[in-house]
Formats: sequence, structure tokens, C-alpha cells
Amino acid sequence: MAIGTLVLLRHGESVWNAQNLFTGWVDVPLSEKGTAEAIRGGTLLREAGILPDVVHTSLQRRAINTAHLALDAADRAWIPVKRDWRLNERHYGALQGKDKKQTLAEFGEEQFMLWRRSYDVPPPPIERGSEFSQDADPRYAGLGADLPLTECLKDVVTRLVPYWESEIVPDLRAGRTVLIGAHGNSLRALVKHLDGISDSDIAGLNIPTGIPLRYDLTEDLAPTTPGGTYLDPDAAAAAISAVANQGR
Amino acid sequence: MAIGTLVLLRHGESVWNAQNLFTGWVDVPLSEKGTAEAIRGGTLLREAGILPDVVHTSLQRRAINTAHLALDAADRAWIPVKRDWRLNERHYGALQGKDKKQTLAEFGEEQFMLWRRSYDVPPPPIERGSEFSQDADPRYAGLGADLPLTECLKDVVTRLVPYWESEIVPDLRAGRTVLIGAHGNSLRALVKHLDGISDSDIAGLNIPTGIPLRYDLTEDLAPTTPGGTYLDPDAAAAAISAVANQGR
Repeated sequence: MAIGTLVLLRHGESVWNAQNLFTGWVDVPLSEKGTAEAIRGGTLLREAGILPDVVHTSLQRRAINTAHLALDAADRAWIPVKRDWRLNERHYGALQGKDKKQTLAEFGEEQFMLWRRSYDVPPPPIERGSEFSQDADPRYAGLGADLPLTECLKDVVTRLVPYWESEIVPDLRAGRTVLIGAHGNSLRALVKHLDGISDSDIAGLNIPTGIPLRYDLTEDLAPTTPGGTYLDPDAAAAAISAVANQGR
Repeated sequence: MAIGTLVLLRHGESVWNAQNLFTGWVDVPLSEKGTAEAIRGGTLLREAGILPDVVHTSLQRRAINTAHLALDAADRAWIPVKRDWRLNERHYGALQGKDKKQTLAEFGEEQFMLWRRSYDVPPPPIERGSEFSQDADPRYAGLGADLPLTECLKDVVTRLVPYWESEIVPDLRAGRTVLIGAHGNSLRALVKHLDGISDSDIAGLNIPTGIPLRYDLTEDLAPTTPGGTYLDPDAAAAAISAVANQGR
């Protein structure tokens, strides 16, 4: 059986994206703009005739709701749903809840970019029990020692790839069209893995919100078009340059 | 392990409820009022401290969206989701898409009430390929000969109880709080089964939209309080009498 189509969808703008705060594992809702982006993402799916057979999401409401709104707009809200913390956004450690611009001013450009874009330097860990930690969040109660206190992108790759292999690849090998509703950094981690991007080159990759990114894959799960294909390439190109300027 | 708590939630008003049309398996969306009902249902769950661990829904968007909006309002949209056609509304056969008041005028009170409330008299079957049939709906593509063309309440009991036993009971026996997001008649079928209501008495039972109905169960899955407990009993009582007057 041919490998199914893979579609990645980064959640629409959240209320903290709009306020330019580091979010990570804090479970903030979509903004009105983000809700509209999600619905438009579903319209793009429908217009392209891409009909997901199964959806995988993180445990965070901005990704859950984006995927749900998009699927409902594409008349596919009835498909099977799988959710896992391994698709969550990167944990931003002690930076969670902090203003990006203020953090840039406080720590300087070099440190700021190291935390935002280095592959293997995580921010300082979040303090247990502090306002923006997830110690008491029931959705992570089963994680035990796996619950991160901070993560670099490398950590995200490490926890995401086993889920990709054990849960997503079997759906693709069954010929299913798979939608992944996730986050800027969990999708960067997946794209790094899929496209074989180097630890340094991944720093330059940004994935825009709300625009489905389609991957067709060979039997060996190599992308037939490296980097995949955005369903709205012009909007994607414009958004990518905007993301790159966040915090400026 | 103690049996988990069961919570039934009938979807909020759909755009066809508002227009007083027979809906059945036609996949109409929630009205604005129905959306608000769903969110209020979630607020009632949260205020009662009832936190679902797993949700089961039909394949119909009015139930899917009601459950989703309620769970999001209760901060539980991240729980595992299971969907199955066996939780769908009763198939209303050739009446699907027809005006209730007009149908009452055309066929008379006796026939009208027989179709609406008799236990074992289904409406005439829907014509294959007609506007409101589900022959071409991809979500039912796997059903084959199980795809109904019309159903009486007895048919709904027959197709729902196996799902109850194989999919929902194991969740309850594992001690989970289970939310079922479904429909007027699939929930009446379940309540008939749970409370051991007779074929004739079930005619008088109406379940209001958007108000969670809680059942605590013994080890033998008998309700500790027959009929369960609505989380907003006053609103439920008012709504039940309104439902009984539909089509008048």
C-alpha cells in the first residue's frame, strides 16, 4: 500500500503569541485571529481535496482547537483523534510567561537567540510549583520523571521521534492521510527529522501558523519534495519572514 | 475498583432544531444558541467538579462540537476521544429534512406521534441517493449493510447496547469518569437500558439539550439514583416540558 499523505498544521495565533510572551507548555487559548486562521486552514484542506483520515494533536488547547476547527471546516471532525504530550510545544523553562522583548533587553541578543534558536541550549529550568509550571496539571500526571522543566529543540526531537515512529508512521503505512495539529517547535523537530536538516541549519527554519504543510513520502519515509508544500505558498512565505522577526 | 461516573450530554440546539425540521442522520451544525448551551454544559461540569477522563461521541458534528466545547470550557479538551456511529441520533428515514409541523398536519396526530414516540414503528425508509440520505457520506463508508435507511427507537437500542458494553463499560470499570456526547434518541436508548424502562414508558422520557446528566452506578451497572441527576435540575425540568411540546 502507498504511504499516506502527511499534513502538518501549526496552531493559529494564541493570546500569548499576540502579547509576545514565551508560552511553551502554558495552556493558553487561541486569539480571535488564531481561530480564524484555523478555520481558513480547514478551508485550504477542503479546497485542495486533502481529507484527513486521522488526526494527531498535542495535549495543548491551542493545537487541539486549531485541528478541531480546521477539521470541522473541512467536514472531517468525525475522524479518529489521538493526542499525546510528545507533540507539545517545546517547554520554555523559566522563560514561560515572560515578555519576549523584555527578555531580549534583559539578557541581550546573543543569549536571547541562543535560547530561541540554538539546537542544544535550553533556557534555565522552571521552578517547580511556580505560576507557569505544569507540576499540578492533571494532563501530565502520568509523566513522572518525563515531565520536562525546560527543553532545547534537541530535547523535543528526542521525545517526539518515538511517537512519530510508534503512532504516526503506522497510520501512514496503512495509507491514511494524517493531520498533525501541533506547535512551532514540535513541528520544526519533526521537519528536521523528515528532511534530515542539520543541527545548525534548523535554526533558520520557521513554520507559519494555520497554513497546512503537505508532505508526500517515499516507502522509506523520505519527502518526495524536500521541505514539503504549503497549501498557500504566498501566505506561507510572508508569514515565515514575520515569524523570523518576532521579539524585534 | 469503583465504577466510574457516567455523564450524558445531549447536543445543544442545532440549526434544524431551531427550524423544527426532522434531522436524524443529516449532519447539521449547532446554532448560536446551541454553541452557548454546550459551553454552559462545560461550565456546569467544571462547577460540579466532574472532570471527564474520556469522551465518547457520535460521528455527527452537533454532538462532536457540543462535547468539544463543553470539555474545553471544563479545561478537559485534552482527554482521549472515541467516536462511533452507534452513538448517532436515530435515523429518521424519509422524514429527514421535513418540517415537523407540516408533517403533523399532513399525516395527523396519531401517525405523527407513532413515528416520534412509538418504540418499534420506524418512519418509511429514506430513498437511496436522495438529498438527505447518507449513502455517499464517507464517514459511513465502512458500514455496508449496517447503514440504516430508517430506525425506530428499538433499532437504536439494538445498535447502541453492543457499543455500550464493548467500549464504554470497560472505561467505567477502569474507574474513569466518562462523558458521552450524543443525541436525544441515542441517549433515550441508553437511559432505557440503564434504568430498565419499559417499551411503553420510554415514550414519556425526554432529555434536555446541553445539561449534563450524571449517573453513578453499582458494580452491576445499576443506577444508584434511577434516572440520574441533572447538574441543573431546574433548567432540566423546564426544558423537558418544552421538548415534549415540539411540533405543536
